[in-house]
Amino acid sequence: MNEAMQMLLLRSEIDAFNASYAATLDERRFDAWPDFFLADARYKVQARENFDRGLPLALIDLESQGMMKDRVYGITQTIYHGPYYTRHVVGPAQVLSQEGESVRAQANYAVFRTRPGDASEVYNVGRYIDELRRTATGLKLASRTCVYDSEMVLNSLIYPI
Amino acid sequence: MNEAMQMLLLRSEIDAFNASYAATLDERRFDAWPDFFLADARYKVQARENFDRGLPLALIDLESQGMMKDRVYGITQTIYHGPYYTRHVVGPAQVLSQEGESVRAQANYAVFRTRPGDASEVYNVGRYIDELRRTATGLKLASRTCVYDSEMVLNSLIYPI
Amino acid sequence: MNEAMQMLLLRSEIDAFNASYAATLDERRFDAWPDFFLADARYKVQARENFDRGLPLALIDLESQGMMKDRVYGITQTIYHGPYYTRHVVGPAQVLSQEGESVRAQANYAVFRTRPGDASEVYNVGRYIDELRRTATGLKLASRTCVYDSEMVLNSLIYPI
Repeated sequence: MNEAMQMLLLRSEIDAFNASYAATLDERRFDAWPDFFLADARYKVQARENFDRGLPLALIDLESQGMMKDRVYGITQTIYHGPYYTRHVVGPAQVLSQEGESVRAQANYAVFRTRPGDASEVYNVGRYIDELRRTATGLKLASRTCVYDSEMVLNSLIYPI
Repeated sequence: MNEAMQMLLLRSEIDAFNASYAATLDERRFDAWPDFFLADARYKVQARENFDRGLPLALIDLESQGMMKDRVYGITQTIYHGPYYTRHVVGPAQVLSQEGESVRAQANYAVFRTRPGDASEVYNVGRYIDELRRTATGLKLASRTCVYDSEMVLNSLIYPI
Repeated sequence: MNEAMQMLLLRSEIDAFNASYAATLDERRFDAWPDFFLADARYKVQARENFDRGLPLALIDLESQGMMKDRVYGITQTIYHGPYYTRHVVGPAQVLSQEGESVRAQANYAVFRTRPGDASEVYNVGRYIDELRRTATGLKLASRTCVYDSEMVLNSLIYPI
């Protein structure tokens, strides 16, 4: 298999990974969300302003799969919040580099929110900046940073992006 | 050809199918829309609330290609309605299962609406839940259910999603 | 390699091209934008109303890579304008035809805008209508027409679409 074909296969795999990730969140199967990550993975949701300047402040910053499970417990069991649906539309991924079992990739996303009785609206747009690792059970995230464009801190970002 | 490659080919075919479906609607070639379906296909547009609870109520429910042609006749010839443009942006498809010539797949979509003299706006977001059949003339839909997130019944959903 | 596989490879290449194009604009690497085009390429941003009727009026109409560089100089150095971020979400490409080293393709896009201190909003949705040429340095645009749905002339379309 030549190089172009291998790159194609990798991109397609990442697109399928992102589609599955999106479906898991949009269908509210939150318990399955940490499974997209490695045990020591990092998950961050950060405003572009801070990301571009290298500032550490992030809206969400989880440093392990354990913290992600805790977050899921929070959003499904304990946090009081107005319910809403999300819908992720993710563009085709770009592979930035590949070294052994490690891949750096990114993809643009738009998340739409629908609150009960309301019309759907643009909620959060930005890009996933990812480090993926190939494992025995397929691709897993070593880190995902969701860099979103609006510097307004949304008062109701409850579910993962 | 190995399994990963076959799956890749299938996903890519479905993405191309969805891109072509979107272009047909967005370019207002409505007469060609029923051709994406089998003769006895089902086309439904249903609110997520009803879909998730297994309730039958749907905004649009067409039980054959004939009913689709009738619908097209209605929207192009007889229904009085304010005109608008649509623009579909569809995410990469997920293949859920494959058995012989049958494929179950889904994809997230966002449809934007533009009314004359107005800005473009989020119109309908949700997911396509599809049963596809491979035929002599390519993939065809045995059923497409458009499950949309907003429970508000839009007073002007005229064109197919 | 059979025909289906070759078409798949081409579509995937165009999707990767579009992802890279989007990232270049969204990350504000404007100087790199003309590199996606051939020296004598055409870049147009045109309302659907005018495009559909074959009318010449376009919001932006650049007839060479030189004019694109000039435009980039304008937006980065001289035009006074309120800053904003863009985010492109591009759907899978459709290949319309292929002849030798030339490819005609199109893809739907949604561009979201985020102004400082504001929420993200739908900015410009439409489709790319492209003529691509295969060169020694990969695919390049011989022409890209961005046909957008809203006939309202946006008073602040500064950055390329």
